[in-house]
Amino acid sequence: MAKVGIIMGSDSDLPILKDAAKTLEELGIDYIMTIASAHRTPERVVKCIKEFEEKEVEVIIAGAGGAAHLPGVVASLTILPVIGVPIKSTLQGLDSLLSIVQMPSGIPVATVAINNAKNAALLAAEILGIKYDDVREKLIEYRKKMKESVEKKGELLEKLGYEEYLEKYKK
Amino acid sequence: MAKVGIIMGSDSDLPILKDAAKTLEELGIDYIMTIASAHRTPERVVKCIKEFEEKEVEVIIAGAGGAAHLPGVVASLTILPVIGVPIKSTLQGLDSLLSIVQMPSGIPVATVAINNAKNAALLAAEILGIKYDDVREKLIEYRKKMKESVEKKGELLEKLGYEEYLEKYKK
Amino acid sequence: MAKVGIIMGSDSDLPILKDAAKTLEELGIDYIMTIASAHRTPERVVKCIKEFEEKEVEVIIAGAGGAAHLPGVVASLTILPVIGVPIKSTLQGLDSLLSIVQMPSGIPVATVAINNAKNAALLAAEILGIKYDDVREKLIEYRKKMKESVEKKGELLEKLGYEEYLEKYKK
Amino acid sequence: MAKVGIIMGSDSDLPILKDAAKTLEELGIDYIMTIASAHRTPERVVKCIKEFEEKEVEVIIAGAGGAAHLPGVVASLTILPVIGVPIKSTLQGLDSLLSIVQMPSGIPVATVAINNAKNAALLAAEILGIKYDDVREKLIEYRKKMKESVEKKGELLEKLGYEEYLEKYKK
Amino acid sequence: MAKVGIIMGSDSDLPILKDAAKTLEELGIDYIMTIASAHRTPERVVKCIKEFEEKEVEVIIAGAGGAAHLPGVVASLTILPVIGVPIKSTLQGLDSLLSIVQMPSGIPVATVAINNAKNAALLAAEILGIKYDDVREKLIEYRKKMKESVEKKGELLEKLGYEEYLEKYKK
Amino acid sequence: MAKVGIIMGSDSDLPILKDAAKTLEELGIDYIMTIASAHRTPERVVKCIKEFEEKEVEVIIAGAGGAAHLPGVVASLTILPVIGVPIKSTLQGLDSLLSIVQMPSGIPVATVAINNAKNAALLAAEILGIKYDDVREKLIEYRKKMKESVEKKGELLEKLGYEEYLEKYKK
Amino acid sequence: MAKVGIIMGSDSDLPILKDAAKTLEELGIDYIMTIASAHRTPERVVKCIKEFEEKEVEVIIAGAGGAAHLPGVVASLTILPVIGVPIKSTLQGLDSLLSIVQMPSGIPVATVAINNAKNAALLAAEILGIKYDDVREKLIEYRKKMKESVEKKGELLEKLGYEEYLEKYKK
Amino acid sequence: MAKVGIIMGSDSDLPILKDAAKTLEELGIDYIMTIASAHRTPERVVKCIKEFEEKEVEVIIAGAGGAAHLPGVVASLTILPVIGVPIKSTLQGLDSLLSIVQMPSGIPVATVAINNAKNAALLAAEILGIKYDDVREKLIEYRKKMKESVEKKGELLEKLGYEEYLEKYKK
Repeated sequence: MAKVGIIMGSDSDLPILKDAAKTLEELGIDYIMTIASAHRTPERVVKCIKEFEEKEVEVIIAGAGGAAHLPGVVASLTILPVIGVPIKSTLQGLDSLLSIVQMPSGIPVATVAINNAKNAALLAAEILGIKYDDVREKLIEYRKKMKESVEKKGELLEKLGYEEYLEKYKK
Repeated sequence: MAKVGIIMGSDSDLPILKDAAKTLEELGIDYIMTIASAHRTPERVVKCIKEFEEKEVEVIIAGAGGAAHLPGVVASLTILPVIGVPIKSTLQGLDSLLSIVQMPSGIPVATVAINNAKNAALLAAEILGIKYDDVREKLIEYRKKMKESVEKKGELLEKLGYEEYLEKYKK
Repeated sequence: MAKVGIIMGSDSDLPILKDAAKTLEELGIDYIMTIASAHRTPERVVKCIKEFEEKEVEVIIAGAGGAAHLPGVVASLTILPVIGVPIKSTLQGLDSLLSIVQMPSGIPVATVAINNAKNAALLAAEILGIKYDDVREKLIEYRKKMKESVEKKGELLEKLGYEEYLEKYKK
Repeated sequence: MAKVGIIMGSDSDLPILKDAAKTLEELGIDYIMTIASAHRTPERVVKCIKEFEEKEVEVIIAGAGGAAHLPGVVASLTILPVIGVPIKSTLQGLDSLLSIVQMPSGIPVATVAINNAKNAALLAAEILGIKYDDVREKLIEYRKKMKESVEKKGELLEKLGYEEYLEKYKK
Repeated sequence: MAKVGIIMGSDSDLPILKDAAKTLEELGIDYIMTIASAHRTPERVVKCIKEFEEKEVEVIIAGAGGAAHLPGVVASLTILPVIGVPIKSTLQGLDSLLSIVQMPSGIPVATVAINNAKNAALLAAEILGIKYDDVREKLIEYRKKMKESVEKKGELLEKLGYEEYLEKYKK
Repeated sequence: MAKVGIIMGSDSDLPILKDAAKTLEELGIDYIMTIASAHRTPERVVKCIKEFEEKEVEVIIAGAGGAAHLPGVVASLTILPVIGVPIKSTLQGLDSLLSIVQMPSGIPVATVAINNAKNAALLAAEILGIKYDDVREKLIEYRKKMKESVEKKGELLEKLGYEEYLEKYKK
Repeated sequence: MAKVGIIMGSDSDLPILKDAAKTLEELGIDYIMTIASAHRTPERVVKCIKEFEEKEVEVIIAGAGGAAHLPGVVASLTILPVIGVPIKSTLQGLDSLLSIVQMPSGIPVATVAINNAKNAALLAAEILGIKYDDVREKLIEYRKKMKESVEKKGELLEKLGYEEYLEKYKK
Repeated sequence: MAKVGIIMGSDSDLPILKDAAKTLEELGIDYIMTIASAHRTPERVVKCIKEFEEKEVEVIIAGAGGAAHLPGVVASLTILPVIGVPIKSTLQGLDSLLSIVQMPSGIPVATVAINNAKNAALLAAEILGIKYDDVREKLIEYRKKMKESVEKKGELLEKLGYEEYLEKYKK
């Protein structure tokens, strides 16, 4: 059963949103993923959210750019938590960010950083973690790995110095 | 028969949007005016736009602030021209402006200046003017008056000097 | 008879503005297209707008970048609806956008998204649609195709998954 | 047992954050609320988050302004979902917003609109709603009331016209 | 004979632009001052600039706010140097500033700080100073007074300390 | 002997810069304080910095607003560390901040938050603390008090609840 | 005899500032051009400006990027008109623009568009034109050519259509 | 003994931060350099700062991008002066800059320009210079070289003209 529904306004958002899918896979969380534009296909958005709810999706990730209405429109159709991913566009993504985060009182969207679909997946996992022990454990493990990776890099840099480090790992 | 439909996301937008109504009245253009929130009442928006179309509205003015989705959502529901009025909010209205103007390809919103509901009405009149001679004539007259008012002020300032002018007209 | 007049400040804007022409062609709407700079050729702007009106143009699309005065200057010369296209420039197009959209009371410009000349054409069509049935029908058809295209992509993504989709359609 | 922990960087944030508390009360959700500064009391932040976890808090709301690090610092200490509320400051809250939302990969913060502590509470409720039926029901009811309130205002405006409406309800 | 022409888009700009007039008076430079809107009275702008030239004006100061086209429009009509004063508006004057300063190649506008009409007058004087010795001398004197005023304040603060200084001079 | 020199561009900056003086007094650090404008009195700036150096000042605090050049100009005249305080101005202080912080390679200015003269004093103390044990001890004490104040407020809020807290302490 | 002095903060600004030199050459105006950094060589700036004045330079063009103090510093040293050219940098040139244009009362800088050194030269010519007839005539001729070039392009586009035009002139 | 500790949030910041190391080497100042993420490894940050203090580091340079909390978090853990380097990210580095510079009262971060790690090293040297004569002498020498380099370039440009200069030195 899919626990997360991923929806995006256009397939041009897929190269960013695929990071959410990949991260969910890493955490062993099932998801479904589709395309529906708030502006070009308003009825399809309604239909997709209905399907998400029928399939017992518990968290929704919605990504869009420019005047990015999809996350807010999705949030208006459900009381599931909706995570918004602002996609970088003409104005560096500032337009996308403000269109998503500045929601009026009553209908929140849980906004993450511009283009950061990975964090959207991790936030979805944190939300699911309050209910599912296995997700919580996966997250703890994920954080541990992240921590170890930073520690290892830190120690390596201390040992090698920046010249050797840059030559070996940043070329 | 109402030619213009005015819709706003909240009655807190009314002190701004009323300027659109007033200007339409000055131009002798019938309108209907209502409140429907894209986020709190998505179905009501659909219903209002359907009613606008049934009542043969030909241009829609939609005002909203913050993550201002209403104009774009309205535009997705109709092929009537939609004029968006960004309402000033937390970020001086920059969030409202970008949320309205940066629409993706396919569904345009005719955006006017922040808080400038009067210009929304004038734009609606210009649009109607391509079909209705009486509206066009009213507009020509309106522009003439505006022009004369500026000319009169210019001549007065030239005559009085800034001190007397400010004392008399800007106190 | 041309229904739309397209005017731009410089031929460097043509690679963007040509999208307006193309979209009008798709919708079967006749247009005329020219170059006139508000700053370098103020008299030519007056002359072009006069010619537009003589040729019974009903909507004008004006594109410019930087301190983008052309749309506002055009709007001051006519009561036809003027659609402004901000062209991306030094400051990501923020300067162009603000120079076009923040018009003072009295003379509106119907502003669309930065570089989005296609939406300018669609907005022109929506405006003409209140008068011409054939334009309205073309628009309905256009929207239907857009909708079907999004639906098809959505279904394809659901079926193929992101990896296969990206490989096939986004390379 | 408290389900939500509210933490803020300074008591100057309380006039905003109290809206989160009020909204949680309306929804019948228990919370605990405290003050700890990421910069002035880094150890107290660690201690508070530990206490939140011991008291089985399931969602954390963190508010801060300026270089608003508290939400991110809290998120680094827990795998509970953390909701960030940017508090308006010198730069209209743009600094607070960017400091909270632009989190690097690995540690997300669910950001809501500037100063919108009410939406933080509603988002917390949506998150808890995936686990607790009674919270979900409260939310459904809350949305229903919101919807009815907008509908009522819309009908009233249609009936009264803007002049009477403004005089009666917006004075 | 007036050496400076001051033009503004609206009499709402007069409380700012009057500072230019005052400063020119202090420097003993004759000016003429009028109102003409680039958008509401395009022909009047042409007429005023022609009159400025007939009256042998040598520098023009033009102030406007929002989508502030007046300085650029004036610059397109003359080869006299045009000084632009961005008037503070909705977006803190950022829109006015960008609309004035970001002129395309070919037609420059000498832009000064937002709302700083005094500096517009001083810049006009510097320009006239390359031709008129008496203006140059006035400017040298003006600078000397400014310098002495700062020095006096600096010495006073050193002597009194901030508490007494603030009490005496900043209450 | 004064260890810190405080310099500001205008006495209109004094209501902000006095916070630096006050905080230095709290920390028992001697300072001298004066006014010199980078633009109106370039020679006075040179003279003041020379005097600062003769009086064995070891850290300089410089505050200015708008096109805030004073901190950078001071930094170009000395190899003492220069702390820049951006003073809030027309554009919310964004202009002041960028004019101070974005120094080119070679001449750094240690920039603090907009209007935050208190932090400038604390940074000066931290710098002096690497040399003077008594300053370091004062700073440790200062931090301890800050910490205790936050802790006390946190405990009070936990005990009283937000209503009583706001009534008692935030009225 | 050189009438214009061009000064820049670094030779990295030369690829932009050379446009000023080229345009002055086109207009037959003599200039001298040098490098002096306000921050790295404050004394050299004083020396260069003194030399400019000795050589009877009448207008100064100063270009710089980032915290761009050079134009303001130059303006503080002379009563000649100073034209500032903001050079594009990290923040798209917004930092350079604000550092140059937002000068405090007393010392104006005539700011032109970001990176637009050509317009700086044209503005210098307009200023010199109030004194020198031959410069004024060159400018009139320059404008005429510009105008003809735009007209020619406009007619060509009307004749060829956008496809042929783009193929022939924009490849 | 290392006098400067350099810490960064990720090895992706190393290509920028290495400039700090290089500049310290040029000035003969010992440093240690490591990686620790405020968000991914909060405990490692505490450990690294403790180690910095045990090794008698006297100034800390901290670099980070996006919601750049590392410099502020480090500053909260020590009373050593902390220099923050905003690393360019999605929003041109504006998010990084504001997240670092806008610190609340009590805990300052000495912020330098976006990506300008060289200036962070120079600022560290200026701070150490108040205690160590040899560092001060190195700095004086460094400034002298910088000055001579600018002077040499200035003279070369005056001699060669821009065409030859660009060809020889800027290709």
